[in-house]
Amino acid sequence: MADAAPPAEGFGFSSIAIIGIGLIGASVALALREAGFTGPIAAADRDDEALHAAVELGIATTTHADAAQAAAEADMIILAVPVGAMEPVACAIGPVLSPRAIVTDVGSVKGAVSRTVSAALPDPSRFVPAHPIAGSEQSGPRAGYASLFRNRWCILTPTDETDPSATQVVADMWRAMGSNIEVMDVERHDLVLAITSHLPHLIAYNIVRTAYDMEAVTEAEVIKFSAGGFRDFTRLAASDPTMWRDVFLNNRAAVIETLGRFSEDLAILQRAIRWGEGDQLYDLFERTRAIRMGIVEAGQDTAAPDFGRPRPAAEERHRTPVPEPASD
Amino acid sequence: MADAAPPAEGFGFSSIAIIGIGLIGASVALALREAGFTGPIAAADRDDEALHAAVELGIATTTHADAAQAAAEADMIILAVPVGAMEPVACAIGPVLSPRAIVTDVGSVKGAVSRTVSAALPDPSRFVPAHPIAGSEQSGPRAGYASLFRNRWCILTPTDETDPSATQVVADMWRAMGSNIEVMDVERHDLVLAITSHLPHLIAYNIVRTAYDMEAVTEAEVIKFSAGGFRDFTRLAASDPTMWRDVFLNNRAAVIETLGRFSEDLAILQRAIRWGEGDQLYDLFERTRAIRMGIVEAGQDTAAPDFGRPRPAAEERHRTPVPEPASD
Repeated sequence: MADAAPPAEGFGFSSIAIIGIGLIGASVALALREAGFTGPIAAADRDDEALHAAVELGIATTTHADAAQAAAEADMIILAVPVGAMEPVACAIGPVLSPRAIVTDVGSVKGAVSRTVSAALPDPSRFVPAHPIAGSEQSGPRAGYASLFRNRWCILTPTDETDPSATQVVADMWRAMGSNIEVMDVERHDLVLAITSHLPHLIAYNIVRTAYDMEAVTEAEVIKFSAGGFRDFTRLAASDPTMWRDVFLNNRAAVIETLGRFSEDLAILQRAIRWGEGDQLYDLFERTRAIRMGIVEAGQDTAAPDFGRPRPAAEERHRTPVPEPASD
Repeated sequence: MADAAPPAEGFGFSSIAIIGIGLIGASVALALREAGFTGPIAAADRDDEALHAAVELGIATTTHADAAQAAAEADMIILAVPVGAMEPVACAIGPVLSPRAIVTDVGSVKGAVSRTVSAALPDPSRFVPAHPIAGSEQSGPRAGYASLFRNRWCILTPTDETDPSATQVVADMWRAMGSNIEVMDVERHDLVLAITSHLPHLIAYNIVRTAYDMEAVTEAEVIKFSAGGFRDFTRLAASDPTMWRDVFLNNRAAVIETLGRFSEDLAILQRAIRWGEGDQLYDLFERTRAIRMGIVEAGQDTAAPDFGRPRPAAEERHRTPVPEPASD
């Protein structure tokens, strides 16, 4: 490494490479700066515009179109590319890594990633698979912000080979960004995330498509009346397409398992509606309220109604004639 | 009417009765007060606690356990009870209504309500079915607020019998509360709302149940990691159980129709995941982004990431040992 200074400021590393400067990569850089990390941050991305943004946002000491070039100079390498790109990136950087460099990632699927990345790296004991449970529907470095990981969980899934001291360094890094740490085995991670994240996104994408394809209802109507509930789903369905394609392809078994259960449950609800079984509906709707309270109490969502969405400002009120019914 | 004053302040009525003082009923009272309505508001509810809250919130001039007693004194009667209670309430108030009183409602289903309420009232020409597309996951009068309807749509579904001058008065009332007005026929309303509101709630209730019933994933895990997407659904799934039971039972055909389409689409997605058809997934995920932009541009949701949810405050950062993996 060019800068041979010992790890400074209590971080267990002195120089960072972030491979992939999207929402998460940029937010990691911003959060680590805010946490007091002053060493160099090398940013790598295939996309020129992302690198340009990284410079403008002041989060990159150096920028690189080539991941290996960024990684060669760092002792903490953070892979923040879509899950499907983790393996090729690991293959590209493997040959140039310093012997004691730690590699970690932020992928939403851990089974496939930890298997393929471990196999591609020269020293799998220095690889710490990680997954911060945070994000937004926006993509790209300009959407990043320093508090994204604050009070969110970061799940680490060290393998049997992972060096515990490397895990400790990565855990401390996420704590410095404000996250809480959970350690899990990869299979459990992939099942827990299938139900808490992957299935919700799939359902959201699907309902937006169903609405699009209702030939009897126009897109303008769907938009106008979306405050009845639909708009909530459109947020998740606006998430990054590449990221989510890769999640579903790489967590296939767990997603299909949870989806099967969801569809079974939905068939039962459909039957209850068809046959007018009001008590069954009421009992379910009563029961599902409790989990919301648990989430709010755990600090994982706001207690404010409607997510605390900003209210529109007061507008001019005027009396106008009642419009004619829309022709259909 | 006790107070024979002409309609004041430009409202086409001088005295209001709100039957059902929940989130919507209380918000209507608050919004009309804010809009400058100074006449008496009679509040009726079967629940003593709701009436007590109405007094405390300063929104009721008089309170009544008996709907007919409240309605007898008013020339604008707003039915804000669950859809399943609309018909019995209409039967109860019908005999005591003043001849020129206007009756309107706020029910989320219009076909069943306009049929049954029209039949129960002495003069169906004075009934204007209405549906404000606004609400929150919270219930009860204390959750109400004056800006709830601002910049939201209110759909009116006048029947063939409805007197256009009554429709105009109700439209002006909703405009005074900040709403935009759309006029539709009842069948179209019930189909549009099935896809924009009823199906989203059904899906939300269902996924929360599926998560509950995953024996391999604990409730604590679902709560902890809910920020990955799941928490969004828990908001809708915390909505009032009685209201939603009644919606599904009273809009059965349209809900089952949209649900059938949703399930078909989901089966296709499941197959694409199973067979690794990444391009098909990507194409859909790309397409669904556009509708979010349309909703934001139409002012029906915030452009802020993550609904503009309040960010947790900065917390103390400390280094602690990495926890042991959770045993499962």
